[in-house]
Amino acid sequence: MQSELEKYLHAHIPLSKAMQVSVVSVEEDNVVLSAPLAPNINHRDTVFGGSASALGILAAWSLLHTRMRRLNMDSRLVIQRNTVEYELPIMSEFTARATLDQPSKWEHFLRVLSRKGKARVAVTSVLECAGNRVGIINGEFVAINAVSV
Amino acid sequence: MQSELEKYLHAHIPLSKAMQVSVVSVEEDNVVLSAPLAPNINHRDTVFGGSASALGILAAWSLLHTRMRRLNMDSRLVIQRNTVEYELPIMSEFTARATLDQPSKWEHFLRVLSRKGKARVAVTSVLECAGNRVGIINGEFVAINAVSV
Repeated sequence: MQSELEKYLHAHIPLSKAMQVSVVSVEEDNVVLSAPLAPNINHRDTVFGGSASALGILAAWSLLHTRMRRLNMDSRLVIQRNTVEYELPIMSEFTARATLDQPSKWEHFLRVLSRKGKARVAVTSVLECAGNRVGIINGEFVAINAVSV
Repeated sequence: MQSELEKYLHAHIPLSKAMQVSVVSVEEDNVVLSAPLAPNINHRDTVFGGSASALGILAAWSLLHTRMRRLNMDSRLVIQRNTVEYELPIMSEFTARATLDQPSKWEHFLRVLSRKGKARVAVTSVLECAGNRVGIINGEFVAINAVSV
């Protein structure tokens, strides 16, 4: 699943390739992506905020994408909004670990999606660097069933 | 100022080069950056949310950077948090226009920065594509005087 997801990201979202994003792990309840400093550096030799945001968004999208794929669902996933807290400067390679905000509501999300062809879900990505939490991204997505559009 | 800023971004923030960011205009009260679709595309042939966020953050940072440069100030500008609303899918080249949230508080910001060596300022970047507003990014920055660290 890791290398499949990595290939998909690099092939379809060229910025993920420019950022040298790699897929660390894909579990049912979390996805971890990683990116090195060099392609994501800023003028202060730390990670550019836009890169930190992008890695968090990619991890969140990847969690939803892989969960839907396991269910053989091909819903379109659209990000609607996100917030980012930059807690500490990121000095080296960093990761984003995405989890559902409310895992217990996943079944409800699937029922609404099935009934209305559209449903909302929220994902949190925690950014870490050298074992420290350095930021957090909350993203709200809407899933739209291909058949309903 | 445009080409100087563009060179600076490409040289110091390699992601801006990968995104093919160009500087459209630099005015005292706003900065407009642009990016084409191809390097910022996603699996649905629209602009990847991470790219949209990154362009908005770059425009916001550029506005503060150029305003400070005009005053010969070399404060460090650190993003603390941002929110992004993705209002419409972005189908082609897009721009981010950054303005201060509260232009009337700029003098106050400078006074606090001078007195305390540190001050906060908020910037909004409006995303547009083909004449339509497609999203908005609110960013909160802190400026830190080099002499105070």
